[in-house]
Amino acid sequence: ELAEYEKLSDQVKISEEALRADGFGENPFYCCLVAELLPAPGEPQGPCVVVGYGLYYFIYSTWKGRNVYLEDIYVKPYRGQGIGSKIIKKVAEVALERGCSQLRLTVLDWNKGAMDLYKALGAQDLTEAEGWHSFRFEEEAMRELAGK
Amino acid sequence: ELAEYEKLSDQVKISEEALRADGFGENPFYCCLVAELLPAPGEPQGPCVVVGYGLYYFIYSTWKGRNVYLEDIYVKPYRGQGIGSKIIKKVAEVALERGCSQLRLTVLDWNKGAMDLYKALGAQDLTEAEGWHSFRFEEEAMRELAGK
Repeated sequence: ELAEYEKLSDQVKISEEALRADGFGENPFYCCLVAELLPAPGEPQGPCVVVGYGLYYFIYSTWKGRNVYLEDIYVKPYRGQGIGSKIIKKVAEVALERGCSQLRLTVLDWNKGAMDLYKALGAQDLTEAEGWHSFRFEEEAMRELAGK
Repeated sequence: ELAEYEKLSDQVKISEEALRADGFGENPFYCCLVAELLPAPGEPQGPCVVVGYGLYYFIYSTWKGRNVYLEDIYVKPYRGQGIGSKIIKKVAEVALERGCSQLRLTVLDWNKGAMDLYKALGAQDLTEAEGWHSFRFEEEAMRELAGK
């Protein structure tokens, strides 16, 4: 759903098994928080409905030390109930508990709603303010570099 | 030196002790490669001169799996000898060995020399091509979010 929302579905190249192995083994590569809707009072108890998630990991700055990077944040079309903000708040709590001084994330420039939310919550747009550009070497480019 | 080069010296807030503890304990937060100049043939053998470094860690994409992020790359004014390219090549090798499908980094837009080098080595500028913007919550903003 996130991939469809970001119009990048053709770029998903990972299996459920790999995601499971990389996130839930020893020394996991990432951590994940899920947002669940509780049944309303009086409604039958049952499994909670997952309506969003935030997936993050720890990164490092030689100037600032430990930081958290929020790789994915996604909320189903229950938007407008503050679920996204709650996920970000929880990730900020985790970051502070682990001695991190920054929470970073990246957003596509057409996703105005998300950009406005992050700014409203106190984030700075570093690409706009300081001119940071993200670069990527894909696997093919890496193989050429490594001579393989 | 890197901080001075990026005109951001005032942002360095980390001690040597913290850097050491976070990078060289169990489950380190980062890995580092150093580039050394060997003594020329006939010159007296001695300690090698460190002329550059690359500091990286593993990140994660829910679409592509394991990736490497090159946080810092810096070469002393021995520039033009291909030392930067050699560091990037070595990091690409490590990334491939560890099953990573991407090598990512971020660069300031006025650092034209670095941007041109990365492009020449096969990287794409994702901010330019797809519109990705880097966002950051600083500690103060995180404390407000977490209500602390």
